[in-house]
Amino acid sequence: MSMRTHYCGLVDSQLSGQVVSLCGWVQRRRDHGGVIFIDLRDREGLVQVVCDPDRADVFAQAERIRNEFCLRITGLVRARPAGTENSNLVSGGIEILCHQLEILNASVTPPFQLDDDNLSETTRLTHRVLDLRRPQMQHNLKLRYQVAMAVRKFLDEHGFIDIETPMLTKSTPEGARDYLVPSRVHDGMFFALPQSPQLFKQLLMVAGFDRYYQITKCFRDEDLRADRQPEFTQIDIETSFMTEGDIRQLFENMIRHVFQTVLEIALPNPFPVMQFADAMRLYGSDKPDLRVKLEFTELTDVMRDVDFKVFSGPANMEGGRVVAMRVPKGAEISRSEIDAYTQFVGIYGAKGLAWIKVNDLSKGRDGLQSPIVKNIHDRALSAILERTAAQDGDILFFGADKAKVVNDAIGALRVKIGHSDFAKQAGLFEAVWKPLWVIDFPMFEFDEEANRWNAMHHPFTSPKDGHEDWLEANPGACIAKAYDMVLNGWEIGGGSVRIHREEVQSKVFRALKIGAEEAKEKFGFLLDALQYGAPPHGGLAFGLDRIVTMMTGAESIRDVIAFPKTQRAQCLLTQAPSPVDEKQLRELHIRLRNPISATKPEA
Amino acid sequence: MSMRTHYCGLVDSQLSGQVVSLCGWVQRRRDHGGVIFIDLRDREGLVQVVCDPDRADVFAQAERIRNEFCLRITGLVRARPAGTENSNLVSGGIEILCHQLEILNASVTPPFQLDDDNLSETTRLTHRVLDLRRPQMQHNLKLRYQVAMAVRKFLDEHGFIDIETPMLTKSTPEGARDYLVPSRVHDGMFFALPQSPQLFKQLLMVAGFDRYYQITKCFRDEDLRADRQPEFTQIDIETSFMTEGDIRQLFENMIRHVFQTVLEIALPNPFPVMQFADAMRLYGSDKPDLRVKLEFTELTDVMRDVDFKVFSGPANMEGGRVVAMRVPKGAEISRSEIDAYTQFVGIYGAKGLAWIKVNDLSKGRDGLQSPIVKNIHDRALSAILERTAAQDGDILFFGADKAKVVNDAIGALRVKIGHSDFAKQAGLFEAVWKPLWVIDFPMFEFDEEANRWNAMHHPFTSPKDGHEDWLEANPGACIAKAYDMVLNGWEIGGGSVRIHREEVQSKVFRALKIGAEEAKEKFGFLLDALQYGAPPHGGLAFGLDRIVTMMTGAESIRDVIAFPKTQRAQCLLTQAPSPVDEKQLRELHIRLRNPISATKPEA
Repeated sequence: MSMRTHYCGLVDSQLSGQVVSLCGWVQRRRDHGGVIFIDLRDREGLVQVVCDPDRADVFAQAERIRNEFCLRITGLVRARPAGTENSNLVSGGIEILCHQLEILNASVTPPFQLDDDNLSETTRLTHRVLDLRRPQMQHNLKLRYQVAMAVRKFLDEHGFIDIETPMLTKSTPEGARDYLVPSRVHDGMFFALPQSPQLFKQLLMVAGFDRYYQITKCFRDEDLRADRQPEFTQIDIETSFMTEGDIRQLFENMIRHVFQTVLEIALPNPFPVMQFADAMRLYGSDKPDLRVKLEFTELTDVMRDVDFKVFSGPANMEGGRVVAMRVPKGAEISRSEIDAYTQFVGIYGAKGLAWIKVNDLSKGRDGLQSPIVKNIHDRALSAILERTAAQDGDILFFGADKAKVVNDAIGALRVKIGHSDFAKQAGLFEAVWKPLWVIDFPMFEFDEEANRWNAMHHPFTSPKDGHEDWLEANPGACIAKAYDMVLNGWEIGGGSVRIHREEVQSKVFRALKIGAEEAKEKFGFLLDALQYGAPPHGGLAFGLDRIVTMMTGAESIRDVIAFPKTQRAQCLLTQAPSPVDEKQLRELHIRLRNPISATKPEA
Repeated sequence: MSMRTHYCGLVDSQLSGQVVSLCGWVQRRRDHGGVIFIDLRDREGLVQVVCDPDRADVFAQAERIRNEFCLRITGLVRARPAGTENSNLVSGGIEILCHQLEILNASVTPPFQLDDDNLSETTRLTHRVLDLRRPQMQHNLKLRYQVAMAVRKFLDEHGFIDIETPMLTKSTPEGARDYLVPSRVHDGMFFALPQSPQLFKQLLMVAGFDRYYQITKCFRDEDLRADRQPEFTQIDIETSFMTEGDIRQLFENMIRHVFQTVLEIALPNPFPVMQFADAMRLYGSDKPDLRVKLEFTELTDVMRDVDFKVFSGPANMEGGRVVAMRVPKGAEISRSEIDAYTQFVGIYGAKGLAWIKVNDLSKGRDGLQSPIVKNIHDRALSAILERTAAQDGDILFFGADKAKVVNDAIGALRVKIGHSDFAKQAGLFEAVWKPLWVIDFPMFEFDEEANRWNAMHHPFTSPKDGHEDWLEANPGACIAKAYDMVLNGWEIGGGSVRIHREEVQSKVFRALKIGAEEAKEKFGFLLDALQYGAPPHGGLAFGLDRIVTMMTGAESIRDVIAFPKTQRAQCLLTQAPSPVDEKQLRELHIRLRNPISATKPEA
């Protein structure tokens, strides 16, 4: 049921002697010894087509063709002459002797060569249709599909059912900014596009669907950092009657299944599990890249009485922190590299970057090269060397500031050094897949500006058993049943056990200073639902774009999305967003604040 | 990996003698002979739990429970006492002797009984979470999932890949009204939510993805007729290198596969195929319900010279039509029923409903009972009786007006009579699944108000081979490679072969009076893509909501959507749409035309 019998890229020696019909695009045409060779391409790859002058009509057609013409050819599969095989191609052992050649459609000359690897992203996104013809993009989107389908099959086998939740829903202006959709029927009212189906999936659990999933678009109107999109795709999952441990077990199985099925890669079994507090202590990050063999050493306690304000200040400050990060063999890092790292940590608010090169421990202080060591008394210096287990040839970097600055700056430095060529040569970077669970997140984090506690995960996250009693008296001590799946330094998924008792949910709202009135207005339907025998439930969400980006090795999530937006939230292909008719605005009961000339006149 | 070992509804005699753990909701509790019986419900069904006073702690817990409490119970599966089995349930042969009973969550008294079948839709949608607990709703959404998954597996096996297209896209204000999304980054600009991924799927074909599908939300901001939703779900498909016949064959296979897999129903093979012209001629509809055994008889030609303006007027009018519809055994239809039918056809613009009861053909005119027969001369009357093959006991209904009015009115009457109890008794309604393809649609339909041709399908539909030459000179004669799949009188899917040559696309735009400038602005990216060797391609889209509604026998598509909107495009559960903060509007560079008190003050 097709104009072709096979995909170009899949014709191989097993078909030798058979006549096949193929459809595809001209990747290259070359004339050689009076014969025309065509590399014909379809989504599965290339095949070589030979047009012989013996067949005058075929040859005449073949002379007309140019790159990117769309052809249908029929011909005989035969072995390539010895020595001309191409082992890089599935079809590399054969060629097609063309019997019939039909030009299905001509092409004007493309604005760029499809195999040009140095195109600007603007060019690529403007001519996205041609860009998508490139084998890498074909591969990326096929792999994305394979991942999604592997997920669906796994979840299907485990009794999960895909239930669609609304795209036109209610605005709850907290967390990220909503995309709004004006209502025509209800003057002055707006829908919001969902930031996630969080509340709906919880309602589905209360409704008894037991195991839900959805691979669905979510929306956040935020200023786009390097690798964000206004619309992104979430593998969204919720289940009833499973504990935190059950949930983590099942979904690490799922991710292992996906890697095995799609890439034939066996991820570790089990994934390591790390408490949030340990992750921050050792790596300054709740998503540590464990491929990097570098750790923090805690020094806050021993720096309180050194005669060096840079260290003693933070060591004595509430919420201050002093750490060292030992880089084995790092003494070879040059001064100019250290200067660059100093600039780098400045991005994260660090006011400098202290360091000690350990040249020769046997020489005591004389064996240490450092601008700061003179300010550190012996006891503290011993503690540094002992705790870091420093060896000759190492360098120690120091962070001393508010804990957040130290964690951000030295955490980022850890990754930067860890990914450098130096680290790879020094054996400080292990090029394997390193998944882990980070668990036991705090329920709340304190927002100093607003002088209030915010939910670290979201306000529907359950505290650990027993911790519900501290929700109001000591929110900072409450640990949540929340978990993130981290892979190579990226959070690829996260979730929590949810609150299923209305009285606990109300307590959390109170801890967050969300009044009864406000809670009712924003989440009344959830609080209402929790009254009717809501089951224990929990779930998580994975970022499909991110997972596929990692699995394909793409540089950007834009390379695993067919029609992405730019960082200015524009589609260069269709020129969206665009002005609309005045009539449309009128029907929606809105007007522009700044009527601009770009607005189209009424149709 | 769960708090339960089995689903309640799936415990059967094979598990007799085993101890199981179950989680679910109390459907009913009854005390009988000192023993407490609980019907425990989960998504798979009910099971009977017995709490014996011998186990004091269990019994004490059981006395506390009420309807819709959420429980976890552990107990022994044993056969029910003889005579108390319930053959309607999978678990009807057994009961669970409760060893442990844990109340996972209590419930306040629900606002209605879950088994109340007479709830208003407002009550159901306001308390949607409880409404969704009803077994029928659980069944509907599970079946919806099964349909979607059967489609995915079929398409996967046939090499189709799911590729996501943008939700935030460009407004093209034709066809239905767009939902708009104001851009924050681009002052005065708007995204539109997609009415369908039409252009993107065509671009994916030009990009060489060959076989695409997506089960995706589409949006139309229209006044909602009985069974429409602002957001609806489309099974969207596109393929390259397949002919119209190939496409129809593959996708009727798909629908047969879905019915077989999900309902174990064998649809006819092959589906009948009917030309649009024949469908209109015989049924006055392009989506005839073939379960109804009633057809139109064309009479326009013989009514030109009758002395009865009601018939001769339309018969002589350009675009007029006169038909009869014979209803076998319909002479028993009463005068009051005929009056009701006359009112009914009035809805569709018919000015009356002429009829003839055929009481006794052997008596000539005397055997006919009718208010109009006196106005019809002998030759015409003979033609009526001959062409309709009228028999004693029949009734003939007549439509005479502009063709559209006749088709709409008598077409609707055909369905109304065909679905009546009379028709079922008279054998005029066959209660089976009746799919068919309607093909050979005209390219264009004339819009008399605007005095221009409109695309009947959409402007990207390919004309039949050869018809592209008439596009400009005689648009009305052009037939399209378009096809609709119809099931029991509903269009469940439709599509077309698309135009893949830019010069044909330009001709169609000219026929539609879309100027070069306008075409470039609206569809420039498509015209541009067509220049680069676009492949022959086509596809179709199925309405998932409608298909599932039919398969479940639901009364409304709202019964197969978890969280639907009302006909006023509102979500009664979350109260969307709702007012938003002034700050949000300011960030989006818009203001309300009619600031209302409902608008919330700035946060």
